Amino acid sequence: MPQMSSAHRPQTTTHVEANGRTYALPRRPTVVVCLDGFDPEYLERGIADGVLPTIAALRTKGYVGSALASIPTTTNTNNTSIVTGVPPAVHGINGNYYLDAETGEEIMVTDARRLRCGTILGAVSKAGVQTAVVTAKDKLLKVLAYEMDGIAFSSEQPNTADLSAVGASGGEELVGRARPDQYSADLSLFALDAGLKLLASLKPGLMYLSTSDYVQHKYAPGDAEANAFHAEVDKRIARMIELGATVALTADHGMADKAAADGQPNVVYVEDALTAKFGAGSVRVICPIADPFVRHHGALGGFVRVHLLKPGDIAAMMTYARSLPGVELVLDKATVCERFQLPPDREGDFAIFTDRATVIGARREDHDLSALGGHRLRSHGGIGEQRVPLILSRPLTPEYREWAETGVVRNLDVFDFALNGVS
Amino acid sequence: MPQMSSAHRPQTTTHVEANGRTYALPRRPTVVVCLDGFDPEYLERGIADGVLPTIAALRTKGYVGSALASIPTTTNTNNTSIVTGVPPAVHGINGNYYLDAETGEEIMVTDARRLRCGTILGAVSKAGVQTAVVTAKDKLLKVLAYEMDGIAFSSEQPNTADLSAVGASGGEELVGRARPDQYSADLSLFALDAGLKLLASLKPGLMYLSTSDYVQHKYAPGDAEANAFHAEVDKRIARMIELGATVALTADHGMADKAAADGQPNVVYVEDALTAKFGAGSVRVICPIADPFVRHHGALGGFVRVHLLKPGDIAAMMTYARSLPGVELVLDKATVCERFQLPPDREGDFAIFTDRATVIGARREDHDLSALGGHRLRSHGGIGEQRVPLILSRPLTPEYREWAETGVVRNLDVFDFALNGVS
Repeated sequence: MPQMSSAHRPQTTTHVEANGRTYALPRRPTVVVCLDGFDPEYLERGIADGVLPTIAALRTKGYVGSALASIPTTTNTNNTSIVTGVPPAVHGINGNYYLDAETGEEIMVTDARRLRCGTILGAVSKAGVQTAVVTAKDKLLKVLAYEMDGIAFSSEQPNTADLSAVGASGGEELVGRARPDQYSADLSLFALDAGLKLLASLKPGLMYLSTSDYVQHKYAPGDAEANAFHAEVDKRIARMIELGATVALTADHGMADKAAADGQPNVVYVEDALTAKFGAGSVRVICPIADPFVRHHGALGGFVRVHLLKPGDIAAMMTYARSLPGVELVLDKATVCERFQLPPDREGDFAIFTDRATVIGARREDHDLSALGGHRLRSHGGIGEQRVPLILSRPLTPEYREWAETGVVRNLDVFDFALNGVS
Repeated sequence: MPQMSSAHRPQTTTHVEANGRTYALPRRPTVVVCLDGFDPEYLERGIADGVLPTIAALRTKGYVGSALASIPTTTNTNNTSIVTGVPPAVHGINGNYYLDAETGEEIMVTDARRLRCGTILGAVSKAGVQTAVVTAKDKLLKVLAYEMDGIAFSSEQPNTADLSAVGASGGEELVGRARPDQYSADLSLFALDAGLKLLASLKPGLMYLSTSDYVQHKYAPGDAEANAFHAEVDKRIARMIELGATVALTADHGMADKAAADGQPNVVYVEDALTAKFGAGSVRVICPIADPFVRHHGALGGFVRVHLLKPGDIAAMMTYARSLPGVELVLDKATVCERFQLPPDREGDFAIFTDRATVIGARREDHDLSALGGHRLRSHGGIGEQRVPLILSRPLTPEYREWAETGVVRNLDVFDFALNGVS
């Protein structure tokens, strides 16, 4: 079992604290993988189709179960919950975009200025443990590597980090291939391969690898391309285990089919609907899943927040929204924040969730579905995509097994399981 | 500190297991109190009004926080979750009534035949610990005292148990007053007083006391009668602590105002609505809160299950139900069971939740609101009444404090906290 790097680690520290939670410093290299969009249906279908031999074996050699994601079930929100170990009410990141209350502008979250607390990676790195983060998408990196001493880069911009410690001039040299196209399965595999290279050379005590859900947005469980991608992921998990790492695998959110039998997307354009009923300039609808760098969902997901632009009848708007086909739940700000642990100063006047078969957007013109190119729309963001896998490569301690089998486990508990919960 | 009774306790057993969860045998007399209908608003208002001095002091001397109840937020469901430590999907009790699939009859749950697992009290009693249960209402007793060796009786039928061990011929003699009227605050205080008498004489290692929500259905937080009742409860908690017990206090569910500004109840008669739209004989609506022995809510709560009586368009019915004012959430059987851990073979074809300000019933004629007598309707059953207090009389261990402050705690975790989580 390779010994992990222990540069300047104080001998007396065995645990660190982050956001009120305690984490044991890793005794062996530990890798936490966030497999973006890894709905339990891909896990179940992959095992059934025989393309996930490593993960399938962990059902007896380790632990394979499920957990709940933060609401909204979007990438930024959940990656942040995972690396901080707390819900959005504490960490402050509740989507890819937010409406600036002063300017009225929609601002994209691209750095850590909206983050309200520290991260587990940051705390562990400051205790002297060699830490690393590799993501597929660059936009996440500044939050995930916030105040972290260590190596951090993305597949999109692989040559930005100082990799002299492993004798490479950049990520492309480390991995041994060119930066992949941002719209590709390989963007994710490149991040995992970079992690493998770091694991083999630098042996970081704690590493976080986060992929992109390009494949899951396009292909359904059981599709050849989905099976092929997850098989490639499974091989890399195997390799991490071979290299002596403890591996924990979860997802930021699930993924679901959002199209009707004829292939047409099931979409509620709720800003159009509210404008038609309550007048122009009544509301602004924010889609937390929106991302100008993402082609594959047209910014359509299972959750939106509605901001009133001028005084209006919130209750009437909520009642009306509730009546629209595909809408599952409409809650006012206080209720949605209390129920789902969201930050009240960052939520809209009310929130709308659609069911697992439907997506919701603002105005028809805001959403470009042409990029779907004939694929059935697949997306996430609502309560229907809250369930995600939670997988550990080693057996759980009796205490953590009891928690996993009888308690409530969230994806944001994955570092707790990985660092405190395995034997 | 009085030593608790240790009749025939095997010296080698320090823990028992119940439904996959481990519980330390109590080292001192432990009392778990389920204060029926104790919404956090009564706790907050009571502390603010100075009528809960004992509980208020526990904010520093012990622990005062909150937890989530099982859905539906009804008495039978939650008392069972609390004494088994697991959700309805495991224990099988999802309401006061169920629709017998074979006969089509509505059957009231009055004994343990629908219970699908053992209880914590049963397991602890069989390890040789002196155990006791006292409830206000008799209907609960058979489930709560299922397979439990020990003392069990109700305020409604106090003389049924063998109390020779404490030198009393029955509960009335033990407590020193006559059995109270079933519609009274004293029905609940009688149960707590019986517990105090048992604590002082028999010193049971583990005791469960469960009250009735007569007061909370009638009086709002801050009403004189509500403050008076909770002040009386607070005095009894103080006395239990004086007697050396570890006390844990939670509730089966919260309680909310369900009336409009003019005092008229906000009610959705959904069987009437569905019948009008889809035809007579389409559906049967079951109200899990219904109880022929309860006058104070007319069987109206925040949740119903709808059973189709003949093949029909479930999706259309659900969409229509969703459009009714006051309806918050409508989910099909698979989704409601997955999301709220309910037993699929015992749920309806779909479930309807109303918001915190509204109740839902079957047909207008099924619900007698005349017994309200001018009081504003107060009830529970939905997601709005899911938050309940969780209070311990002793400080939590660091591990349990971390769970309480950063994890998800449910009222069904109360025995875990009481037996495993205090120093």
